[in-house]
Amino acid sequence: MRVVVPFDATDPKSRLDAVLDADERREFAAVLLADVLDALRGTGVDPAVLATAPLDVDAPVTVDDRPLTDAVNAVLADADEPVAVVMADLALATPGSCRRLLGAPGDVALAPGRGGGTNALLARHPDFRVDYHGRSYVDHLRAARRVGASVFEVDSHRLATDVDERADLGEVLLHGEGDAPDWLRERGFRPTADGGRGGVRRRN
Amino acid sequence: MRVVVPFDATDPKSRLDAVLDADERREFAAVLLADVLDALRGTGVDPAVLATAPLDVDAPVTVDDRPLTDAVNAVLADADEPVAVVMADLALATPGSCRRLLGAPGDVALAPGRGGGTNALLARHPDFRVDYHGRSYVDHLRAARRVGASVFEVDSHRLATDVDERADLGEVLLHGEGDAPDWLRERGFRPTADGGRGGVRRRN
Repeated sequence: MRVVVPFDATDPKSRLDAVLDADERREFAAVLLADVLDALRGTGVDPAVLATAPLDVDAPVTVDDRPLTDAVNAVLADADEPVAVVMADLALATPGSCRRLLGAPGDVALAPGRGGGTNALLARHPDFRVDYHGRSYVDHLRAARRVGASVFEVDSHRLATDVDERADLGEVLLHGEGDAPDWLRERGFRPTADGGRGGVRRRN
Repeated sequence: MRVVVPFDATDPKSRLDAVLDADERREFAAVLLADVLDALRGTGVDPAVLATAPLDVDAPVTVDDRPLTDAVNAVLADADEPVAVVMADLALATPGSCRRLLGAPGDVALAPGRGGGTNALLARHPDFRVDYHGRSYVDHLRAARRVGASVFEVDSHRLATDVDERADLGEVLLHGEGDAPDWLRERGFRPTADGGRGGVRRRN
C-alpha cells in the first residue's frame, strides 16, 4: 500500500492568519504534518509526503507543484497497489483512527471532513480519481459509483477534524495526541472557558 | 440496557434563531429527535425520551424539568443496568454509528461532540455520573477515572455532529440520512456552493 500525505509547502494554513503570523503558520503546519506521519507510522506503514515544494521532513518527499487534485491523480494513475491519501492537517489522527481507514473494506474508503470535504481516502480501484474542493465528499461518492467501485464510509471524528480555522485549534487542544497541542500551549493558546463551540484564546 | 434521549421541549435550538423562527425551531427539533430515535431503534433497542416538558412523540417519555445533568444523573442513579444517553440533535446518527456506541467496550464509552461536549455515552459502571456543559468531555474522562471506570472513546463524525449553529445545517444536508435533510430542503435550505466550511443559504 502507498500512503501519501499531500502538503502545501508554500502558504499553509492561510485561514489562521488572524491568530498566527506567517512563520508560525509554516511551523505549525510542519508540526501537524509530523503528527499525521507519526500516527500513520503507528499503524506500521511508511507514509510519503507529496509536497508543492521541497521540504525538510523525516519522510520521503515527492515534489509536485500542480494543484492537489492533479498531483494526487498522478499518484493514483501511477500506482499498481492500493493508495491511501491522508491530509496533512488532521491534528487528531491517531494510529487507531488511521487503522480504521487503512483497514477499511470497499474499493474506495472515504473519511469525510467537516464541511463536506474528504480528509482521507483509500483507493483500491484502479480507475478511481479524485477531485478535491470544499465539498468533495459527495463528488467522490459519485466518482466511485461512476467507475463501479464500492464505497465504505470511515466515520471518524478524528479524521473529520482538519485544522483550518481558529475554532479548530480548540479541538486540537482538547483531543490532540501528537505535538500540536503542546506547540499551541507553548504559544499561549488555551481553550475558552465558556465551553462555546471550539473557542480558543491566546495569551501573549 | 436503558437508552435515554434527553430533549429540551421548552426552547429548543435557540442558536438557530437567525435562520429559523420559534415555531420552525420547535418543529425542526422534533424532526431531529425522531431521526435519532429511528437510528437507535435501527440497532434493536427501545429508546425513551427524557424531556423537560410533556411531549407528543412516538416513544415513552419521562418528564423531568431539572437541568440536564440532574435529570440524567437521576436516571443513572436509578438504573440497575447499563444506560446509554444520546443527545436529541445528532442529525447524522445512523444505526451503524449508534451500534458503535451501544456495543462499545469499557465501563464508560464516550462519544465526543465538536467543541468538547459529550454527545453520547454508555455507562456500565454504577457510580459514573455526568456533568454536562460545553466542554464536558474532559470532565467525563476525569469522572470515569475518579470512580475507577475504564473509558472507551467512540470516534464517530456522525455522533460528534450535533446541530446547534447555522453551519451545522450544512452537515445535515450533506450527510443526514433521516428526515431532517428533507425538512431543511423543503424550507429552502441549500449547501452553499463555494464549499466553505458548512455554509447554508436559505431561499424563500
